[in-house]
Amino acid sequence: MNEINFMMERAIRTALEEDLGPGDVTTQAVLAHDQSGTAYLIAREGMILAGMHVFELTFREICRDITFQRACRDGESISSGQVVSTMHGSLEAILKGERTALNFLQRMSGIATLTHRYVEKVKGTRAEILDTRKTAPGLRWFDKYAVRTGGGRNHRFGLFDGVLIKDNHIASAGSIKRAVEAAGERVTHTLAVEVEVEDLAGVEEALMAGVDIILLDNMPLEALKKAVELVDGAAKVEASGGVSLKTVEDIAKTGVDFISVGELTHSAKAADFSLKIEPLSD
Amino acid sequence: MNEINFMMERAIRTALEEDLGPGDVTTQAVLAHDQSGTAYLIAREGMILAGMHVFELTFREICRDITFQRACRDGESISSGQVVSTMHGSLEAILKGERTALNFLQRMSGIATLTHRYVEKVKGTRAEILDTRKTAPGLRWFDKYAVRTGGGRNHRFGLFDGVLIKDNHIASAGSIKRAVEAAGERVTHTLAVEVEVEDLAGVEEALMAGVDIILLDNMPLEALKKAVELVDGAAKVEASGGVSLKTVEDIAKTGVDFISVGELTHSAKAADFSLKIEPLSD
Amino acid sequence: MNEINFMMERAIRTALEEDLGPGDVTTQAVLAHDQSGTAYLIAREGMILAGMHVFELTFREICRDITFQRACRDGESISSGQVVSTMHGSLEAILKGERTALNFLQRMSGIATLTHRYVEKVKGTRAEILDTRKTAPGLRWFDKYAVRTGGGRNHRFGLFDGVLIKDNHIASAGSIKRAVEAAGERVTHTLAVEVEVEDLAGVEEALMAGVDIILLDNMPLEALKKAVELVDGAAKVEASGGVSLKTVEDIAKTGVDFISVGELTHSAKAADFSLKIEPLSD
Amino acid sequence: MNEINFMMERAIRTALEEDLGPGDVTTQAVLAHDQSGTAYLIAREGMILAGMHVFELTFREICRDITFQRACRDGESISSGQVVSTMHGSLEAILKGERTALNFLQRMSGIATLTHRYVEKVKGTRAEILDTRKTAPGLRWFDKYAVRTGGGRNHRFGLFDGVLIKDNHIASAGSIKRAVEAAGERVTHTLAVEVEVEDLAGVEEALMAGVDIILLDNMPLEALKKAVELVDGAAKVEASGGVSLKTVEDIAKTGVDFISVGELTHSAKAADFSLKIEPLSD
Amino acid sequence: MNEINFMMERAIRTALEEDLGPGDVTTQAVLAHDQSGTAYLIAREGMILAGMHVFELTFREICRDITFQRACRDGESISSGQVVSTMHGSLEAILKGERTALNFLQRMSGIATLTHRYVEKVKGTRAEILDTRKTAPGLRWFDKYAVRTGGGRNHRFGLFDGVLIKDNHIASAGSIKRAVEAAGERVTHTLAVEVEVEDLAGVEEALMAGVDIILLDNMPLEALKKAVELVDGAAKVEASGGVSLKTVEDIAKTGVDFISVGELTHSAKAADFSLKIEPLSD
Amino acid sequence: MNEINFMMERAIRTALEEDLGPGDVTTQAVLAHDQSGTAYLIAREGMILAGMHVFELTFREICRDITFQRACRDGESISSGQVVSTMHGSLEAILKGERTALNFLQRMSGIATLTHRYVEKVKGTRAEILDTRKTAPGLRWFDKYAVRTGGGRNHRFGLFDGVLIKDNHIASAGSIKRAVEAAGERVTHTLAVEVEVEDLAGVEEALMAGVDIILLDNMPLEALKKAVELVDGAAKVEASGGVSLKTVEDIAKTGVDFISVGELTHSAKAADFSLKIEPLSD
Repeated sequence: MNEINFMMERAIRTALEEDLGPGDVTTQAVLAHDQSGTAYLIAREGMILAGMHVFELTFREICRDITFQRACRDGESISSGQVVSTMHGSLEAILKGERTALNFLQRMSGIATLTHRYVEKVKGTRAEILDTRKTAPGLRWFDKYAVRTGGGRNHRFGLFDGVLIKDNHIASAGSIKRAVEAAGERVTHTLAVEVEVEDLAGVEEALMAGVDIILLDNMPLEALKKAVELVDGAAKVEASGGVSLKTVEDIAKTGVDFISVGELTHSAKAADFSLKIEPLSD
Repeated sequence: MNEINFMMERAIRTALEEDLGPGDVTTQAVLAHDQSGTAYLIAREGMILAGMHVFELTFREICRDITFQRACRDGESISSGQVVSTMHGSLEAILKGERTALNFLQRMSGIATLTHRYVEKVKGTRAEILDTRKTAPGLRWFDKYAVRTGGGRNHRFGLFDGVLIKDNHIASAGSIKRAVEAAGERVTHTLAVEVEVEDLAGVEEALMAGVDIILLDNMPLEALKKAVELVDGAAKVEASGGVSLKTVEDIAKTGVDFISVGELTHSAKAADFSLKIEPLSD
Repeated sequence: MNEINFMMERAIRTALEEDLGPGDVTTQAVLAHDQSGTAYLIAREGMILAGMHVFELTFREICRDITFQRACRDGESISSGQVVSTMHGSLEAILKGERTALNFLQRMSGIATLTHRYVEKVKGTRAEILDTRKTAPGLRWFDKYAVRTGGGRNHRFGLFDGVLIKDNHIASAGSIKRAVEAAGERVTHTLAVEVEVEDLAGVEEALMAGVDIILLDNMPLEALKKAVELVDGAAKVEASGGVSLKTVEDIAKTGVDFISVGELTHSAKAADFSLKIEPLSD
Repeated sequence: MNEINFMMERAIRTALEEDLGPGDVTTQAVLAHDQSGTAYLIAREGMILAGMHVFELTFREICRDITFQRACRDGESISSGQVVSTMHGSLEAILKGERTALNFLQRMSGIATLTHRYVEKVKGTRAEILDTRKTAPGLRWFDKYAVRTGGGRNHRFGLFDGVLIKDNHIASAGSIKRAVEAAGERVTHTLAVEVEVEDLAGVEEALMAGVDIILLDNMPLEALKKAVELVDGAAKVEASGGVSLKTVEDIAKTGVDFISVGELTHSAKAADFSLKIEPLSD
Repeated sequence: MNEINFMMERAIRTALEEDLGPGDVTTQAVLAHDQSGTAYLIAREGMILAGMHVFELTFREICRDITFQRACRDGESISSGQVVSTMHGSLEAILKGERTALNFLQRMSGIATLTHRYVEKVKGTRAEILDTRKTAPGLRWFDKYAVRTGGGRNHRFGLFDGVLIKDNHIASAGSIKRAVEAAGERVTHTLAVEVEVEDLAGVEEALMAGVDIILLDNMPLEALKKAVELVDGAAKVEASGGVSLKTVEDIAKTGVDFISVGELTHSAKAADFSLKIEPLSD
Repeated sequence: MNEINFMMERAIRTALEEDLGPGDVTTQAVLAHDQSGTAYLIAREGMILAGMHVFELTFREICRDITFQRACRDGESISSGQVVSTMHGSLEAILKGERTALNFLQRMSGIATLTHRYVEKVKGTRAEILDTRKTAPGLRWFDKYAVRTGGGRNHRFGLFDGVLIKDNHIASAGSIKRAVEAAGERVTHTLAVEVEVEDLAGVEEALMAGVDIILLDNMPLEALKKAVELVDGAAKVEASGGVSLKTVEDIAKTGVDFISVGELTHSAKAADFSLKIEPLSD
């Protein structure tokens, strides 16, 4: 069984509905009824593939009887011109689902590809590349799946599966200590407590409060290095802010455990695909 | 009244639900009850602003009583550091809505900004910049609104508000002529009929069939020019394929009426914002 | 594949839910479990059949295993007493779906039948019979499908797939010219622009503005004729208002391209059917 | 508080969505922003008014700030030309909601008007006019409300709030007696048990089984009279089948308690209204 | 066909969504892909089984291919240690659905078991055990099904399938007589009219008004007996208030027709089950 | 602002819909229009109050204008006869919402009350009382809120906000070590990893694997004590299985950090309330 969930199904359906509305006027007017066809999904640039299952489910929402033969798998590195999948079935259904299915696939593969480039940059260090909550609204599951597929690791999914105490929480609680205590008392014990700090003083205060993870926001390389030394394994250390493909390697070399990168999901370039359709001749 | 629709409200709600799930554990554990605050929305780079209304509605879905003072309007060119809006209300609601509201705004402003750059490039020509259906699944309304805000024009919203006859439709119908006739007979008379062609022979055939719009897909500049001459005002002419900020000006100079650009909505870089929150001291 | 869309599925489900609520108390109390049966769908008057696919989908929402043998097709002219379809399966499912399935079918066939009568009246003229947006709320897709099945043609589906400028729009814009220009600049180029006028002065103004379609609202036959002459092929011409089975032929003879008829969808008499059920004897 | 329920709100929203889709292209392109206006709802024929509350709620779903001054109330008999309501607010919202609001109102008032004609016919007899479940799919609440407004009475709403044993139930149970017993044992005691019979033998059997209501389906006047005598108050008696404005009075005179009429909700002619809009001059 | 309805499907889906959210992190991280397994559903105490169909549907919402072999049926009395069902299929799907499926089953079997104990207590009397509307919000269909399965009978499902006139209704109408008349005139004739009274004077007034059912609320045994005598078959008599396993037998002996018990659905102890899972060895 | 979320609003609406269906036939037939009233919410037994906000929101979904004066707060210990809240507004709305609002409140207060009794039992020990995922389907948010209100602490909300490795996961992974490693690599770093073990050997293996929390399932008191010693603060320790009000104190004295109790949410007795309504005299 592939990984499926209700969020995913609902998002696919919503996307189809926004494209189809009351109907595909062109296809319904022009197409011969009950025509079948074959379609070839072709990569038009090098990429890390992500979203094959979503691609297929999109067509299946329109017509149960379309069959697919995958030539490549999610996570695979494919090159321009490669046939990724061959599908067969109702031409009408293929034409109706084409754009929506490709929209998912090009976004997800774009994210996986960018993630992969970051992951390659930090190879050999202890750092793992994390995503953020800076995702396209309504598409978080897809965006985060693509990050995993590209070799990254997911940060918390939403506001509910991780405690992340920021400056406003600290200001409201009075101190890091009090904020961490409040979380420790009221939040389910299955969640780690992370605190965002901006300097070494913050790191020390966080350590004293006994947090599980320290998020170093926008700190220079020197400070990151010192923070890692200061923490010395007593908590996990995450770096964020100002991360790019140019800077990520140096950040990783400071010894941090995690580097979170908003760009992965808010600014990845779409991967380029085409769907070549061949109507079945009689 | 601002432009609102049900798609928009539903997408905002879906986005909030995916972020909030069963609750914002950090804020609920740490924040003092009934605390109010002020938040400043600040641009962190130059951009064309788009999505202020969506930004505000996102918070309003959580709490009706938040007030906003907009300093800038959608479509305005703003610079880094500018305060775009000041909001006041429940700190809890502000913290819960922050990420989702920003996710909409950064995507929409990114699209508007990129669109604007394209529009600037074709100034002085007759060409208008169009978007495509290559949008983030579920966010088409937002993506297309952002394109308009950036000075672009929308292509059809979905498969239902425009006839676009592609090669598969033509193959199925037998010829451009027959496909156009079928559309002319069966589709509502309020929709124009557009045909995609790949060479000048196609242009001629389309003209003979009496189409309203001819889409020249991936044709070289020379061919585009000839196509425009051939058509000579008998139909609108749209160019697509291989369009970039580098090529768009030359394409525009061929005399086409429209240039459609997938990049606007599938690969725009997010615009950078921050939300500076100030809890109200007692 | 039959023409299906999400609107249709949702409407069928909603209709079943309103009829079934927490359960069919009679059937559940009285029926022997797992009893099968055969049901004959019989026309009880002459009509143009419309909605067979919807009829079947309604039962399939309750039980996947019901089988159907259609004896007639949508668009066919059938006579009283004719067996339209034979179905077989769970008696419980047949009884639960019966009323809802018939409610769709009787409405759709009623609309198709009335449309057909209008279409017959205008045979030999250039006029096509159009529907309007005066449909039963929530059933527009079904109503418009039935109009097509009866030989009519659909006007725009909603407010989104056609520009129709009425007096209020004109008043707000200042003049027909300005309203048409605004639409020409802001609306997707795949939509035609139609203007509603009430007299020949309006026709002239619309022609000057370069509209695609002119809607002549409630104009006497003489004026219609003159309008057609005035337009002389420079735009399509649609007549509306005061159209009945008695007047439609004369209106058609004025040479208009389209005649739109609200009655088709707001006042068609339901077609009469019965479902004869035969429980399977053991 | 007016009678509201969730079914109603959902149906109004669904109807607006099918009309508005991604947006009212005409109004958005042409209208001056923030323009207000006044609209007069005018009856264009004599009728029994029904649906004023639904009419208003439809606009309120688009914009909270529209105000209404009703000049007439549901159930009132109004004449052609009468101003039924005056509304004031955003012109954009009025134009967007106009068609959908009128579609509800014209259908509901049409049903109320037809019902009223039936009710007038049976005045002076003991018979009450009932509706059936032959309603427009998804609009049962509205249709049944309109029947009540026209002076009729509602039969059961769906399959869940009344036991109605038909021939198939009887065949499955073995006899009227057994079917009635099964219902009496298994169904909530708050529901009456009604049996459909086709002749006097059926009436006797039903009486013996102790049913609460006997439905005489398609029986001639003579037989109806005898059935009423036979029952003699031991059960309520309902007549159905072949009921029209021509026959209803004679049927009523047979002494039956109820006459159910499918036509009320499946074939009522829409009532004619217009909405006269006056943009506010500056 | 088993008894299914849309409420049920929606509730199962909602329950799965609240448990699964964006995904089962443990199973997805740890489980080998495509592993199959067998699971045994075992009763861990004596009980009346209820909800087998719901149990199975819950897993089927996640994966269509799970197979079940029921060893016991709803309504059966089973003992501790008994294997109730054996299921086979994707281990991932079994683990994801386990808790939700058991949550339904343990609640429903708990209600059926408690109902059965009440039913046993009143054996030999004419009294039937009824449930109330005091159910878990959103689970009424399941709760009422469980009561039937335990041998009880359902009172009205909601506010729509039975008239129950309480003191506030009487106060508002002016008298029992007027309230009953209003109901008799306006409510569908398929619903019985029940009135709640608190003493013998109320019983007399209700009888005079011609109600179908009299609900004796919180009346002592002596008064119940007198009420039954007074009514003498002219209406059905229901007792409620202060009913427990200790008092129910005495109440039943007063001769009332029905005894309604809130405890059945608001305070039944969950029945204890375990699901023993055996991964398939390779 | 009170703690609100979308799950909660949806569950309230679903509950109202199941009770109201197409309408409250009694109230609509009998009540005088626009009558107002006052209602007193009264506790009929001692309890810990929980759910006041939900109680109020339920009525507000029907009518915005009802006002409430709370005399007691969630978490407060109240006694029989105490007036908890006084509400004022439309009598129709109060009668329609009454049962649903009480159904939420009686369940939530019942859970809070039972939780409180457990919490009292373990006072003076280090143990905290946890809930489980054994909640009423669809009501998890409410059930878990009630546990917090009664002084307990929430375990993970669902399968997504905590890693809990059970025997099947271990079997599939090969060993505790491998399962913990897999989780450590693939799951977001904000989630703690918990392993369920059944004996001291399991405890040792879990410690070696470096888990955050060890769940001791169904272990005797002696073994619990030894496990706590063995762990010696290197992980948190949770006990579950066989927990009752009789055994919980002894379990707590073994030194475990958490005791999880299914009974809190699957078998709590509903708290008893009444709503005393006083129609406003004219």
